[in-house]
Amino acid sequence: MAHQAIKTVSIRKFNGADASEQPDVLAVEEPLEIRLEYGPAAKRSTKSLSVTMRTPGADEDLARGFLFTEGIVREASDIAGLRAQPLGNVLTVVLRPELHFEPSRLERHFYTTSSCGVCGKSSIEAVKTTTNCATVSEKRHWEIRPDIIYSLPDTLRQAQRTFDATGGLHASALFDPEGNLLAIREDVGRHNALDKLIGHYLGQSIMPLDQHLLLLSGRASFELLQKAAMAGMQVVCAVGAPSSLAVETAESFGITLIGFLRDNRFNVYAGG
Amino acid sequence: MAHQAIKTVSIRKFNGADASEQPDVLAVEEPLEIRLEYGPAAKRSTKSLSVTMRTPGADEDLARGFLFTEGIVREASDIAGLRAQPLGNVLTVVLRPELHFEPSRLERHFYTTSSCGVCGKSSIEAVKTTTNCATVSEKRHWEIRPDIIYSLPDTLRQAQRTFDATGGLHASALFDPEGNLLAIREDVGRHNALDKLIGHYLGQSIMPLDQHLLLLSGRASFELLQKAAMAGMQVVCAVGAPSSLAVETAESFGITLIGFLRDNRFNVYAGG
Repeated sequence: MAHQAIKTVSIRKFNGADASEQPDVLAVEEPLEIRLEYGPAAKRSTKSLSVTMRTPGADEDLARGFLFTEGIVREASDIAGLRAQPLGNVLTVVLRPELHFEPSRLERHFYTTSSCGVCGKSSIEAVKTTTNCATVSEKRHWEIRPDIIYSLPDTLRQAQRTFDATGGLHASALFDPEGNLLAIREDVGRHNALDKLIGHYLGQSIMPLDQHLLLLSGRASFELLQKAAMAGMQVVCAVGAPSSLAVETAESFGITLIGFLRDNRFNVYAGG
Repeated sequence: MAHQAIKTVSIRKFNGADASEQPDVLAVEEPLEIRLEYGPAAKRSTKSLSVTMRTPGADEDLARGFLFTEGIVREASDIAGLRAQPLGNVLTVVLRPELHFEPSRLERHFYTTSSCGVCGKSSIEAVKTTTNCATVSEKRHWEIRPDIIYSLPDTLRQAQRTFDATGGLHASALFDPEGNLLAIREDVGRHNALDKLIGHYLGQSIMPLDQHLLLLSGRASFELLQKAAMAGMQVVCAVGAPSSLAVETAESFGITLIGFLRDNRFNVYAGG
Protein backbone atom coordinates (compact mmCIF):
# COMPACT_ATOMS: atom_id res chain seq x y z
CA MET A 1 0.00 0.00 0.00
CA ALA A 2 1.48 3.28 -1.10
CA HIS A 3 1.71 6.05 1.45
CA GLN A 4 3.99 8.30 -0.48
CA ALA A 5 2.86 11.29 -2.47
CA ILE A 6 5.00 10.46 -5.48
CA LYS A 7 5.75 7.23 -7.34
CA THR A 8 8.46 6.59 -9.93
CA VAL A 9 7.54 4.55 -13.00
CA SER A 10 9.12 3.68 -16.32
CA ILE A 11 7.45 5.22 -19.36
CA ARG A 12 7.93 5.33 -23.11
CA LYS A 13 8.54 8.92 -24.20
CA PHE A 14 7.66 9.99 -27.75
CA ASN A 15 9.15 13.24 -29.05
CA GLY A 16 8.54 13.82 -32.75
CA ALA A 17 10.07 10.79 -34.49
CA ASP A 18 12.02 9.63 -31.40
CA ALA A 19 10.92 7.17 -28.75
CA SER A 20 12.82 6.12 -25.61
CA GLU A 21 12.33 4.42 -22.25
CA GLN A 22 12.64 6.85 -19.35
CA PRO A 23 11.79 7.10 -15.66
CA ASP A 24 8.94 9.45 -14.74
CA VAL A 25 7.23 10.47 -11.50
CA LEU A 26 3.49 10.24 -10.88
CA ALA A 27 1.29 11.89 -8.30
CA VAL A 28 -0.07 9.10 -6.11
CA GLU A 29 -3.87 8.76 -5.98
CA GLU A 30 -5.31 6.44 -3.31
CA PRO A 31 -8.72 6.22 -1.63
CA LEU A 32 -9.12 7.46 1.94
CA GLU A 33 -12.19 6.43 3.89
CA ILE A 34 -13.14 8.92 6.61
CA ARG A 35 -15.19 7.44 9.46
CA LEU A 36 -16.85 9.26 12.30
CA GLU A 37 -17.18 8.07 15.90
CA TYR A 38 -19.85 10.15 17.62
CA GLY A 39 -22.62 10.25 20.20
CA PRO A 40 -22.88 10.45 24.00
CA ALA A 41 -20.31 8.49 26.04
CA ALA A 42 -22.86 5.80 26.93
CA LYS A 43 -23.88 5.19 23.34
CA ARG A 44 -21.13 5.75 20.80
CA SER A 45 -21.72 5.06 17.11
CA THR A 46 -19.43 4.80 14.09
CA LYS A 47 -20.39 5.85 10.60
CA SER A 48 -18.53 5.85 7.30
CA LEU A 49 -18.65 9.41 6.06
CA SER A 50 -16.91 9.45 2.71
CA VAL A 51 -14.30 7.89 0.50
CA THR A 52 -12.19 10.44 -1.29
CA MET A 53 -9.45 9.86 -3.83
CA ARG A 54 -6.48 11.71 -2.42
CA THR A 55 -2.70 11.94 -2.47
CA PRO A 56 -1.41 10.33 0.75
CA GLY A 57 0.05 12.74 3.31
CA ALA A 58 -1.56 15.19 5.75
CA ASP A 59 -4.52 12.80 6.02
CA GLU A 60 -5.43 14.09 9.47
CA ASP A 61 -5.52 17.67 8.20
CA LEU A 62 -7.62 16.47 5.28
CA ALA A 63 -10.15 14.84 7.63
CA ARG A 64 -10.20 17.89 9.94
CA GLY A 65 -10.68 20.26 7.01
CA PHE A 66 -13.36 18.09 5.41
CA LEU A 67 -15.36 17.87 8.62
CA PHE A 68 -15.03 21.60 9.15
CA THR A 69 -16.02 22.62 5.63
CA GLU A 70 -18.97 20.21 5.80
CA GLY A 71 -20.12 21.96 8.98
CA ILE A 72 -19.76 18.86 11.18
CA VAL A 73 -17.14 20.39 13.49
CA ARG A 74 -16.62 24.07 14.23
CA GLU A 75 -13.39 24.09 16.21
CA ALA A 76 -10.34 21.94 16.88
CA SER A 77 -11.66 20.83 20.28
CA ASP A 78 -14.76 19.25 18.68
CA ILE A 79 -12.37 16.48 17.61
CA ALA A 80 -11.32 14.33 20.57
CA GLY A 81 -8.90 12.26 18.52
CA LEU A 82 -7.98 10.68 15.20
CA ARG A 83 -7.38 6.97 14.71
CA ALA A 84 -5.67 5.53 11.64
CA GLN A 85 -6.04 1.86 10.77
CA PRO A 86 -2.74 -0.01 10.71
CA LEU A 87 -3.41 -1.02 7.11
CA GLY A 88 -3.91 2.63 6.29
CA ASN A 89 -6.38 4.49 4.10
CA VAL A 90 -9.05 4.45 6.82
CA LEU A 91 -9.11 7.32 9.28
CA THR A 92 -11.61 7.50 12.13
CA VAL A 93 -12.36 10.94 13.54
CA VAL A 94 -13.51 10.73 17.15
CA LEU A 95 -15.93 13.55 18.02
CA ARG A 96 -16.18 14.80 21.60
CA PRO A 97 -19.21 13.12 23.24
CA GLU A 98 -21.04 16.40 23.83
CA LEU A 99 -21.03 17.42 20.17
CA HIS A 100 -24.35 16.91 18.47
CA PHE A 101 -24.11 15.11 15.14
CA GLU A 102 -27.17 14.23 13.09
CA PRO A 103 -26.28 11.49 10.56
CA SER A 104 -29.57 11.88 8.67
CA ARG A 105 -28.46 15.38 7.68
CA LEU A 106 -25.71 13.80 5.60
CA GLU A 107 -28.02 11.34 3.90
CA ARG A 108 -29.72 14.26 2.21
CA HIS A 109 -26.78 16.51 1.65
CA PHE A 110 -28.53 18.19 -1.26
CA TYR A 111 -28.54 21.73 -2.45
CA THR A 112 -32.31 22.00 -2.33
CA THR A 113 -34.76 24.55 -1.01
CA SER A 114 -38.54 24.31 -1.02
CA SER A 115 -38.84 27.61 -2.91
CA CYS A 116 -36.96 26.81 -6.09
CA GLY A 117 -35.93 23.16 -5.84
CA VAL A 118 -32.41 22.44 -6.99
CA CYS A 119 -30.53 25.44 -8.33
CA GLY A 120 -27.45 27.55 -7.85
CA LYS A 121 -29.28 29.89 -5.48
CA SER A 122 -30.34 27.01 -3.25
CA SER A 123 -26.77 25.68 -3.28
CA ILE A 124 -25.58 28.99 -1.87
CA GLU A 125 -28.42 29.02 0.69
CA ALA A 126 -27.35 25.54 1.83
CA VAL A 127 -23.85 26.86 2.50
CA LYS A 128 -25.29 29.82 4.42
CA THR A 129 -27.19 27.57 6.77
CA THR A 130 -24.09 25.57 7.70
CA THR A 131 -21.52 28.36 7.86
CA ASN A 132 -21.15 30.66 10.80
CA CYS A 133 -18.95 33.10 8.96
CA ALA A 134 -19.55 36.81 9.30
CA THR A 135 -21.89 38.56 6.89
CA VAL A 136 -20.44 41.13 4.54
CA SER A 137 -21.27 44.21 6.62
CA GLU A 138 -19.56 42.81 9.72
CA LYS A 139 -16.33 42.21 7.90
CA ARG A 140 -13.21 44.20 8.36
CA HIS A 141 -12.22 45.64 5.01
CA TRP A 142 -8.64 45.88 3.90
CA GLU A 143 -6.79 46.76 0.76
CA ILE A 144 -4.27 44.72 -1.22
CA ARG A 145 -2.04 46.25 -3.82
CA PRO A 146 -2.22 44.75 -7.35
CA ASP A 147 1.55 44.15 -7.38
CA ILE A 148 1.19 41.86 -4.37
CA ILE A 149 -1.53 39.92 -6.20
CA TYR A 150 0.69 39.69 -9.31
CA SER A 151 3.50 38.18 -7.22
CA LEU A 152 1.49 35.25 -5.82
CA PRO A 153 1.71 32.76 -8.74
CA ASP A 154 5.51 33.09 -8.93
CA THR A 155 5.81 32.41 -5.22
CA LEU A 156 3.50 29.42 -5.59
CA ARG A 157 5.42 28.09 -8.57
CA GLN A 158 8.72 28.29 -6.71
CA ALA A 159 7.22 26.45 -3.74
CA GLN A 160 5.50 23.88 -5.97
CA ARG A 161 8.70 23.13 -7.85
CA THR A 162 10.01 21.54 -4.67
CA PHE A 163 7.00 19.29 -4.27
CA ASP A 164 5.57 18.71 -7.64
CA ALA A 165 7.74 17.05 -10.22
CA THR A 166 4.65 15.22 -11.48
CA GLY A 167 2.63 18.07 -12.99
CA GLY A 168 -0.38 16.24 -11.58
CA LEU A 169 -1.00 18.00 -8.29
CA HIS A 170 -3.42 20.83 -7.53
CA ALA A 171 -2.22 23.35 -4.97
CA SER A 172 -3.94 25.56 -2.41
CA ALA A 173 -1.72 28.18 -0.79
CA LEU A 174 -2.29 30.72 1.96
CA PHE A 175 -0.51 34.08 1.96
CA ASP A 176 -0.47 37.01 4.35
CA PRO A 177 -1.64 40.42 3.03
CA GLU A 178 1.97 41.30 2.13
CA GLY A 179 2.17 38.30 -0.22
CA ASN A 180 4.34 36.10 2.01
CA LEU A 181 3.62 32.39 1.61
CA LEU A 182 2.36 30.89 4.88
CA ALA A 183 1.41 27.35 3.85
CA ILE A 184 0.89 25.24 0.74
CA ARG A 185 -0.92 21.93 0.34
CA GLU A 186 -1.07 19.75 -2.75
CA ASP A 187 -3.27 16.89 -3.87
CA VAL A 188 -4.58 15.15 -6.99
CA GLY A 189 -8.00 16.48 -5.89
CA ARG A 190 -8.28 20.26 -5.70
CA HIS A 191 -10.93 20.04 -2.95
CA ASN A 192 -8.57 17.84 -0.93
CA ALA A 193 -5.72 20.35 -1.26
CA LEU A 194 -7.97 23.07 0.18
CA ASP A 195 -9.34 20.80 2.93
CA LYS A 196 -5.76 19.94 3.94
CA LEU A 197 -4.89 23.63 4.12
CA ILE A 198 -7.97 24.53 6.14
CA GLY A 199 -7.57 21.47 8.37
CA HIS A 200 -3.97 22.48 9.12
CA TYR A 201 -5.12 25.84 10.47
CA LEU A 202 -8.14 24.40 12.28
CA GLY A 203 -5.79 22.00 14.05
CA GLN A 204 -3.90 25.03 15.36
CA SER A 205 -7.16 26.79 16.27
CA ILE A 206 -6.39 29.54 13.75
CA MET A 207 -9.84 30.28 12.36
CA PRO A 208 -11.40 32.20 10.60
CA LEU A 209 -8.77 32.83 7.93
CA ASP A 210 -10.13 36.31 7.22
CA GLN A 211 -6.84 38.19 7.09
CA HIS A 212 -5.25 36.01 4.44
CA LEU A 213 -5.09 35.52 0.69
CA LEU A 214 -5.94 32.12 -0.78
CA LEU A 215 -4.38 31.10 -4.08
CA LEU A 216 -5.72 28.15 -6.08
CA SER A 217 -3.44 26.66 -8.76
CA GLY A 218 -6.33 25.86 -11.12
CA ARG A 219 -9.93 26.83 -11.68
CA ALA A 220 -12.35 28.10 -9.05
CA SER A 221 -15.51 26.02 -8.66
CA PHE A 222 -18.52 26.35 -6.35
CA GLU A 223 -17.09 23.68 -4.07
CA LEU A 224 -13.84 25.57 -3.52
CA LEU A 225 -15.64 28.85 -2.84
CA GLN A 226 -17.95 27.03 -0.45
CA LYS A 227 -14.93 25.77 1.50
CA ALA A 228 -13.30 29.22 1.45
CA ALA A 229 -16.54 30.75 2.76
CA MET A 230 -16.71 28.19 5.58
CA ALA A 231 -13.18 29.22 6.61
CA GLY A 232 -14.21 32.89 6.55
CA MET A 233 -11.80 33.75 3.76
CA GLN A 234 -12.25 37.16 2.15
CA VAL A 235 -9.85 37.02 -0.81
CA VAL A 236 -9.66 34.05 -3.19
CA CYS A 237 -7.32 34.13 -6.21
CA ALA A 238 -7.28 31.47 -8.93
CA VAL A 239 -4.75 30.92 -11.70
CA GLY A 240 -7.60 29.57 -13.86
CA ALA A 241 -11.19 30.49 -14.66
CA PRO A 242 -14.02 30.73 -12.13
CA SER A 243 -17.43 29.17 -12.80
CA SER A 244 -20.67 31.16 -12.71
CA LEU A 245 -21.66 29.64 -9.38
CA ALA A 246 -18.23 30.33 -7.89
CA VAL A 247 -18.73 34.02 -8.73
CA GLU A 248 -22.25 34.05 -7.29
CA THR A 249 -21.06 32.33 -4.10
CA ALA A 250 -18.25 34.87 -3.74
CA GLU A 251 -20.72 37.75 -4.18
CA SER A 252 -23.08 36.24 -1.68
CA PHE A 253 -20.36 35.95 0.98
CA GLY A 254 -18.60 39.23 0.23
CA ILE A 255 -15.51 37.39 -1.01
CA THR A 256 -13.21 39.14 -3.47
CA LEU A 257 -12.75 36.60 -6.26
CA ILE A 258 -9.83 36.99 -8.67
CA GLY A 259 -9.42 34.72 -11.70
CA PHE A 260 -6.91 34.21 -14.54
CA LEU A 261 -4.11 35.46 -12.29
CA ARG A 262 -1.01 35.06 -14.47
CA ASP A 263 1.60 37.09 -16.38
CA ASN A 264 0.91 40.30 -14.44
CA ARG A 265 -2.79 40.18 -15.21
CA PHE A 266 -5.93 39.26 -13.34
CA ASN A 267 -9.71 39.66 -13.50
CA VAL A 268 -11.85 40.66 -10.53
CA TYR A 269 -15.10 38.69 -10.69
CA ALA A 270 -16.59 39.64 -7.34
CA GLY A 271 -15.91 42.10 -4.56
CA GLY A 272 -13.24 44.73 -4.91
CA MET B 1 -32.63 29.47 -13.35
CA ALA B 2 -29.83 29.34 -15.87
CA HIS B 3 -30.00 26.65 -18.54
CA GLN B 4 -27.31 28.02 -20.75
CA ALA B 5 -23.75 26.79 -20.78
CA ILE B 6 -22.26 30.28 -20.80
CA LYS B 7 -23.04 33.48 -18.93
CA THR B 8 -21.80 37.00 -19.64
CA VAL B 9 -20.74 39.14 -16.69
CA SER B 10 -18.98 42.44 -16.16
CA ILE B 11 -15.52 42.21 -14.62
CA ARG B 12 -12.67 44.51 -13.66
CA LYS B 13 -9.58 43.61 -15.67
CA PHE B 14 -6.11 44.43 -14.28
CA ASN B 15 -3.18 44.39 -16.67
CA GLY B 16 0.05 45.71 -15.18
CA ALA B 17 -0.79 49.25 -14.03
CA ASP B 18 -4.08 49.45 -16.00
CA ALA B 19 -7.56 48.55 -14.82
CA SER B 20 -10.77 48.63 -16.83
CA GLU B 21 -14.37 47.39 -16.78
CA GLN B 22 -14.99 44.72 -19.40
CA PRO B 23 -17.51 42.02 -20.28
CA ASP B 24 -16.38 38.42 -19.77
CA VAL B 25 -17.95 35.01 -20.25
CA LEU B 26 -18.18 32.36 -17.54
CA ALA B 27 -18.81 28.64 -17.75
CA VAL B 28 -22.14 28.04 -16.02
CA GLU B 29 -22.07 25.67 -13.03
CA GLU B 30 -25.44 24.49 -11.67
CA PRO B 31 -26.47 21.45 -9.62
CA LEU B 32 -28.32 18.58 -11.31
CA GLU B 33 -30.14 16.06 -9.18
CA ILE B 34 -30.47 12.65 -10.83
CA ARG B 35 -33.35 10.53 -9.55
CA LEU B 36 -34.14 6.94 -10.35
CA GLU B 37 -37.59 5.40 -10.80
CA TYR B 38 -37.24 1.62 -10.57
CA GLY B 39 -38.83 -1.65 -9.50
CA PRO B 40 -41.51 -4.01 -10.84
CA ALA B 41 -44.59 -2.42 -12.45
CA ALA B 42 -46.76 -3.16 -9.41
CA LYS B 43 -44.35 -1.55 -6.96
CA ARG B 44 -42.37 1.37 -8.38
CA SER B 45 -39.99 3.35 -6.18
CA THR B 46 -38.15 6.63 -6.63
CA LYS B 47 -34.73 7.36 -5.20
CA SER B 48 -32.45 10.36 -5.37
CA LEU B 49 -29.18 9.10 -6.76
CA SER B 50 -26.79 12.04 -6.83
CA VAL B 51 -26.42 15.77 -7.12
CA THR B 52 -23.62 16.78 -9.45
CA MET B 53 -22.38 20.26 -10.24
CA ARG B 54 -22.53 20.45 -14.02
CA THR B 55 -22.73 22.82 -16.95
CA PRO B 56 -26.34 22.76 -18.23
CA GLY B 57 -26.86 21.06 -21.59
CA ALA B 58 -26.92 17.39 -22.63
CA ASP B 59 -28.39 16.56 -19.20
CA GLU B 60 -30.04 13.40 -20.51
CA ASP B 61 -26.74 12.17 -21.93
CA LEU B 62 -25.10 13.02 -18.60
CA ALA B 63 -27.67 10.93 -16.70
CA ARG B 64 -27.41 8.05 -19.19
CA GLY B 65 -23.62 8.08 -19.02
CA PHE B 66 -23.56 8.35 -15.23
CA LEU B 67 -25.91 5.39 -14.79
CA PHE B 68 -23.91 3.36 -17.28
CA THR B 69 -20.50 4.11 -15.78
CA GLU B 70 -21.90 3.36 -12.31
CA GLY B 71 -23.01 -0.04 -13.58
CA ILE B 72 -26.73 0.61 -12.99
CA VAL B 73 -27.73 0.25 -16.65
CA ARG B 74 -25.94 -1.75 -19.33
CA GLU B 75 -27.74 -0.73 -22.51
CA ALA B 76 -29.97 2.01 -23.87
CA SER B 77 -33.11 -0.11 -23.53
CA ASP B 78 -32.61 -0.42 -19.75
CA ILE B 79 -33.87 3.17 -19.63
CA ALA B 80 -37.61 3.36 -20.36
CA GLY B 81 -37.68 7.16 -20.27
CA LEU B 82 -36.30 10.40 -18.84
CA ARG B 83 -38.42 13.03 -17.11
CA ALA B 84 -37.20 16.57 -16.47
CA GLN B 85 -38.92 18.73 -13.85
CA PRO B 86 -40.42 21.91 -15.28
CA LEU B 87 -38.29 23.97 -12.89
CA GLY B 88 -35.24 22.16 -14.22
CA ASN B 89 -32.15 20.76 -12.55
CA VAL B 90 -33.95 17.55 -11.54
CA LEU B 91 -33.93 14.67 -13.98
CA THR B 92 -35.70 11.39 -13.27
CA VAL B 93 -34.44 8.32 -15.11
CA VAL B 94 -37.16 5.70 -15.47
CA LEU B 95 -35.72 2.16 -15.51
CA ARG B 96 -37.56 -0.61 -17.33
CA PRO B 97 -39.58 -2.60 -14.75
CA GLU B 98 -37.70 -5.85 -15.41
CA LEU B 99 -34.28 -4.37 -14.60
CA HIS B 100 -32.99 -5.34 -11.19
CA PHE B 101 -31.68 -2.43 -9.16
CA GLU B 102 -30.42 -2.83 -5.63
CA PRO B 103 -30.39 0.58 -3.85
CA SER B 104 -28.37 -0.74 -0.89
CA ARG B 105 -25.49 -1.35 -3.29
CA LEU B 106 -25.19 2.42 -3.69
CA GLU B 107 -25.28 3.13 0.03
CA ARG B 108 -21.95 1.36 0.33
CA HIS B 109 -20.37 2.42 -2.90
CA PHE B 110 -16.92 1.99 -1.44
CA TYR B 111 -13.70 0.80 -2.91
CA THR B 112 -13.21 -1.87 -0.27
CA THR B 113 -12.28 -5.51 -0.30
CA SER B 114 -12.04 -7.85 2.65
CA SER B 115 -8.44 -8.74 1.80
CA CYS B 116 -6.77 -5.36 2.00
CA GLY B 117 -9.42 -2.90 3.14
CA VAL B 118 -9.43 0.39 1.31
CA CYS B 119 -6.67 0.79 -1.24
CA GLY B 120 -5.98 1.42 -4.89
CA LYS B 121 -6.03 -2.28 -5.69
CA SER B 122 -9.47 -2.70 -4.13
CA SER B 123 -10.70 0.34 -6.08
CA ILE B 124 -9.71 -1.37 -9.30
CA GLU B 125 -11.30 -4.65 -8.14
CA ALA B 126 -14.54 -2.76 -7.47
CA VAL B 127 -14.54 -1.54 -11.08
CA LYS B 128 -13.89 -5.06 -12.33
CA THR B 129 -16.93 -6.45 -10.54
CA THR B 130 -19.25 -3.87 -12.13
CA THR B 131 -17.83 -3.74 -15.63
CA ASN B 132 -18.55 -6.33 -18.25
CA CYS B 133 -15.79 -5.19 -20.52
CA ALA B 134 -13.55 -7.69 -22.21
CA THR B 135 -10.34 -8.77 -20.54
CA VAL B 136 -7.06 -7.90 -22.20
CA SER B 137 -6.56 -11.18 -24.00
CA GLU B 138 -9.98 -11.04 -25.65
CA LYS B 139 -9.37 -7.62 -27.10
CA ARG B 140 -8.71 -6.90 -30.71
CA HIS B 141 -5.36 -5.17 -31.00
CA TRP B 142 -4.77 -2.33 -33.40
CA GLU B 143 -2.03 0.13 -34.11
CA ILE B 144 -2.13 3.91 -34.12
CA ARG B 145 0.60 5.99 -35.69
CA PRO B 146 2.28 8.59 -33.42
CA ASP B 147 1.51 11.39 -35.92
CA ILE B 148 -2.20 10.70 -35.51
CA ILE B 149 -1.81 10.94 -31.72
CA TYR B 150 0.14 14.21 -32.11
CA SER B 151 -2.69 15.71 -34.17
CA LEU B 152 -5.45 15.17 -31.60
CA PRO B 153 -4.90 18.21 -29.31
CA ASP B 154 -4.95 20.62 -32.27
CA THR B 155 -8.21 19.15 -33.50
CA LEU B 156 -9.64 19.41 -29.98
CA ARG B 157 -8.47 23.00 -29.61
CA GLN B 158 -10.08 24.03 -32.87
CA ALA B 159 -13.36 22.42 -31.84
CA GLN B 160 -13.16 23.85 -28.33
CA ARG B 161 -12.56 27.36 -29.61
CA THR B 162 -16.13 27.33 -30.88
CA PHE B 163 -17.59 26.32 -27.53
CA ASP B 164 -15.27 27.51 -24.91
CA ALA B 165 -14.68 31.22 -24.68
CA THR B 166 -14.62 30.83 -20.90
CA GLY B 167 -11.42 28.86 -20.38
CA GLY B 168 -13.35 27.07 -17.65
CA LEU B 169 -14.58 23.94 -19.35
CA HIS B 170 -13.06 20.47 -19.37
CA ALA B 171 -13.47 18.52 -22.60
CA SER B 172 -13.77 14.84 -23.49
CA ALA B 173 -13.52 14.03 -27.17
CA LEU B 174 -13.86 10.82 -29.15
CA PHE B 175 -11.85 10.20 -32.33
CA ASP B 176 -11.73 7.40 -34.85
CA PRO B 177 -8.39 5.54 -35.34
CA GLU B 178 -7.51 7.95 -38.20
CA GLY B 179 -7.74 10.92 -35.84
CA ASN B 180 -11.06 12.28 -37.08
CA LEU B 181 -13.12 13.98 -34.37
CA LEU B 182 -16.41 12.17 -33.82
CA ALA B 183 -17.85 13.97 -30.79
CA ILE B 184 -16.83 16.43 -28.11
CA ARG B 185 -18.52 17.21 -24.79
CA GLU B 186 -17.60 19.95 -22.32
CA ASP B 187 -18.41 20.62 -18.69
CA VAL B 188 -17.06 22.37 -15.59
CA GLY B 189 -16.67 18.86 -14.17
CA ARG B 190 -14.33 16.57 -16.09
CA HIS B 191 -16.25 13.46 -15.01
CA ASN B 192 -19.45 15.04 -16.34
CA ALA B 193 -17.86 15.78 -19.73
CA LEU B 194 -16.94 12.10 -20.05
CA ASP B 195 -20.34 10.89 -18.80
CA LYS B 196 -22.03 13.14 -21.40
CA LEU B 197 -19.85 11.67 -24.14
CA ILE B 198 -20.46 8.07 -23.06
CA GLY B 199 -24.18 8.75 -22.52
CA HIS B 200 -24.44 10.15 -26.04
CA TYR B 201 -23.15 6.89 -27.52
CA LEU B 202 -25.14 4.68 -25.15
CA GLY B 203 -28.29 6.53 -26.26
CA GLN B 204 -27.49 5.45 -29.83
CA SER B 205 -26.67 1.89 -28.66
CA ILE B 206 -23.07 2.32 -29.81
CA MET B 207 -21.18 0.42 -27.11
CA PRO B 208 -18.47 -0.62 -26.33
CA LEU B 209 -16.31 2.21 -27.66
CA ASP B 210 -13.38 -0.11 -28.27
CA GLN B 211 -12.40 1.11 -31.73
CA HIS B 212 -11.98 4.75 -30.76
CA LEU B 213 -9.47 7.16 -29.20
CA LEU B 214 -10.51 9.19 -26.16
CA LEU B 215 -8.85 12.56 -25.56
CA LEU B 216 -9.13 14.31 -22.18
CA SER B 217 -8.34 18.06 -22.09
CA GLY B 218 -6.78 17.89 -18.62
CA ARG B 219 -5.35 15.32 -16.23
CA ALA B 220 -6.26 11.65 -16.07
CA SER B 221 -7.60 10.45 -12.71
CA PHE B 222 -8.79 7.06 -11.50
CA GLU B 223 -12.41 8.15 -11.94
CA LEU B 224 -11.92 8.99 -15.63
CA LEU B 225 -10.11 5.71 -16.32
CA GLN B 226 -12.86 3.85 -14.47
CA LYS B 227 -15.46 5.41 -16.79
CA ALA B 228 -13.33 4.69 -19.88
CA ALA B 229 -12.98 1.05 -18.77
CA MET B 230 -16.74 0.75 -18.29
CA ALA B 231 -17.21 1.96 -21.88
CA GLY B 232 -14.68 -0.62 -23.09
CA MET B 233 -12.26 2.03 -24.34
CA GLN B 234 -8.77 0.83 -25.29
CA VAL B 235 -6.89 4.08 -25.88
CA VAL B 236 -7.05 7.08 -23.53
CA CYS B 237 -4.98 10.21 -24.19
CA ALA B 238 -4.70 13.13 -21.77
CA VAL B 239 -3.21 16.57 -22.34
CA GLY B 240 -2.18 16.60 -18.66
CA ALA B 241 -0.62 14.20 -16.16
CA PRO B 242 -2.06 10.86 -15.11
CA SER B 243 -2.24 9.81 -11.46
CA SER B 244 -0.66 6.60 -10.13
CA LEU B 245 -4.06 4.94 -9.81
CA ALA B 246 -5.08 6.00 -13.31
CA VAL B 247 -1.98 4.21 -14.64
CA GLU B 248 -2.69 1.10 -12.55
CA THR B 249 -6.32 1.03 -13.69
CA ALA B 250 -5.23 1.34 -17.33
CA GLU B 251 -2.76 -1.53 -16.88
CA SER B 252 -5.40 -3.66 -15.21
CA PHE B 253 -7.86 -3.20 -18.09
CA GLY B 254 -5.32 -3.35 -20.91
CA ILE B 255 -5.92 0.30 -21.78
CA THR B 256 -3.15 2.23 -23.54
CA LEU B 257 -2.78 5.40 -21.47
CA ILE B 258 -1.01 8.40 -22.97
CA GLY B 259 -0.25 11.54 -20.93
CA PHE B 260 1.27 14.99 -21.47
CA LEU B 261 0.12 14.92 -25.09
CA ARG B 262 1.17 18.35 -26.38
CA ASP B 263 3.67 20.03 -28.75
CA ASN B 264 4.37 16.83 -30.71
CA ARG B 265 5.27 14.89 -27.59
CA PHE B 266 3.58 12.32 -25.40
CA ASN B 267 4.35 9.74 -22.75
CA VAL B 268 3.00 6.19 -22.78
CA TYR B 269 2.17 5.19 -19.20
CA ALA B 270 0.41 1.89 -19.84
CA GLY B 271 -0.11 -0.47 -22.74
CA GLY B 272 1.57 0.04 -26.05
